[in-house]
Amino acid sequence: MQRVVVVGGTHGNELGGIYLCRKWTPAPRYWQNYPFAVETYLANPKAIDLNQRYVDQDLNRSFRSADLANPDLSSYEAQRARLIASDLAGADFIVDLHNTTSNMGLSLIFSGTDSFGDPLIRQLCAHLVQSEPLVHVYHMPVPAEINPYLPSLGQRELTLEVGPMAHGTLRADLFFKTEKLVQTLLDYLADWARGEAHTYQGELTIYSHVQSLDFPRDANGDLAGMVHPHLYGRDYKAIRNGHPLFVTFEGRELLYQGSEEVYPVFIDEQAYYEKHYALSLTRKVQIPI
Amino acid sequence: MQRVVVVGGTHGNELGGIYLCRKWTPAPRYWQNYPFAVETYLANPKAIDLNQRYVDQDLNRSFRSADLANPDLSSYEAQRARLIASDLAGADFIVDLHNTTSNMGLSLIFSGTDSFGDPLIRQLCAHLVQSEPLVHVYHMPVPAEINPYLPSLGQRELTLEVGPMAHGTLRADLFFKTEKLVQTLLDYLADWARGEAHTYQGELTIYSHVQSLDFPRDANGDLAGMVHPHLYGRDYKAIRNGHPLFVTFEGRELLYQGSEEVYPVFIDEQAYYEKHYALSLTRKVQIPI
Repeated sequence: MQRVVVVGGTHGNELGGIYLCRKWTPAPRYWQNYPFAVETYLANPKAIDLNQRYVDQDLNRSFRSADLANPDLSSYEAQRARLIASDLAGADFIVDLHNTTSNMGLSLIFSGTDSFGDPLIRQLCAHLVQSEPLVHVYHMPVPAEINPYLPSLGQRELTLEVGPMAHGTLRADLFFKTEKLVQTLLDYLADWARGEAHTYQGELTIYSHVQSLDFPRDANGDLAGMVHPHLYGRDYKAIRNGHPLFVTFEGRELLYQGSEEVYPVFIDEQAYYEKHYALSLTRKVQIPI
Repeated sequence: MQRVVVVGGTHGNELGGIYLCRKWTPAPRYWQNYPFAVETYLANPKAIDLNQRYVDQDLNRSFRSADLANPDLSSYEAQRARLIASDLAGADFIVDLHNTTSNMGLSLIFSGTDSFGDPLIRQLCAHLVQSEPLVHVYHMPVPAEINPYLPSLGQRELTLEVGPMAHGTLRADLFFKTEKLVQTLLDYLADWARGEAHTYQGELTIYSHVQSLDFPRDANGDLAGMVHPHLYGRDYKAIRNGHPLFVTFEGRELLYQGSEEVYPVFIDEQAYYEKHYALSLTRKVQIPI
């Protein structure tokens, strides 16, 4: 492991990662003790200046191999993605810092189909989970050839989703918890690279993506309802058959119907309204560390 | 009282008022029993379509008399303000529905210098405060000739600020509480107009604007800190000399210094970052109803 990159501002209005990357520039002195180089990288400067998620299109859906290889794609983010792919080529580990309006705490998100076939990822997750109670591991696998996410450029990748925090704002408690978690992560990678890492036994809990659900909509496709108050803010809390999911503007309740216990995540994330996702459902899985 | 107007979408990403106004179109049948006409009005359709606060400039700062009289102002919102001033001319009561990322509950905001010289306003506030524990009355007076707010177009005006709710999202609990409060308000106005309103005695608590505070900033004017975790979300809670206000990115605490007990409001409102307001301080005042 030679090159670790910590990315902020992939979405220009997610201020936690942006201000942490700025705080880490120039790099903190103690980073010099690591057996690898650590860089910070602000991914979408124009969106950051505008305090918007993106300029033309979502940068964090712009990294499919075919898109990177297509010079005809001319949106700001398509061009930017090609530059980033060049800048970050050869990175051994990319950590991409995000914020969410959902109550996701400090979520470690992995998009590789075989992320947990990697002993380092399993051990790192075990280490981070025990370091901070707000940490959860969310696995949302996408085949490599169509993976659209920025950190998939790295040999290894991690998206850190921190919330609840309204886009365009900062929350001090989450800012400092994020800083501390990234520090814990880098320290563990350094120990691993030196062959000195503490190794964990037992099982790791992973929330594995099942499906995303849209809001109720009317015949025109407009919103017809909202997340139910009994679900709002309850990311990673189990729901069973009959649990309320939505309430329409008229007050009618829509319930979860399914025989399986599931764990909702990204409940009411602001940026997913336009993607027609009200929340995602996950399955809780135990894997050997 | 002949014409009451309920306005939504003065800011295009404050979804509560927008979807309530849509729900109330066509007008609910029971509104026909009122001794006055009630209309809904979506103020900034282009910003609503874009799901943005505004297109060119903040519409809710575009209603100064001099600006309305100036045909050379050509921004979308300046033009829209002139149209709205024409549409709403002669309205007896304007209720403007807003949302905020701050924990403002259901705040009744009045911008007239003599709002509480009006017995109806005092009685209405007393009625609404006792109807719902999240209701607070915030007085932020601006001289009429430079009042930039939309509802100042009415003979009487009220801004209803509801939060916490991330812009571009809906919260069901607050949506239905807002609906109920507007209903309670209209019922009271109807009773008042018929001479049948319950009248209140005693005192009314008002939070009276003192000043707004900016975030800590560095030499370049960039953010250097955040709202302190001990203040975050504590709108309308008293603070005294020495209470933490901010924490810098480096972890240094900045404290409130003042001999007077004050009550912060609009703590960490997303849209006020660009206005350089981190929060406002108010004074708690009791007035005879």
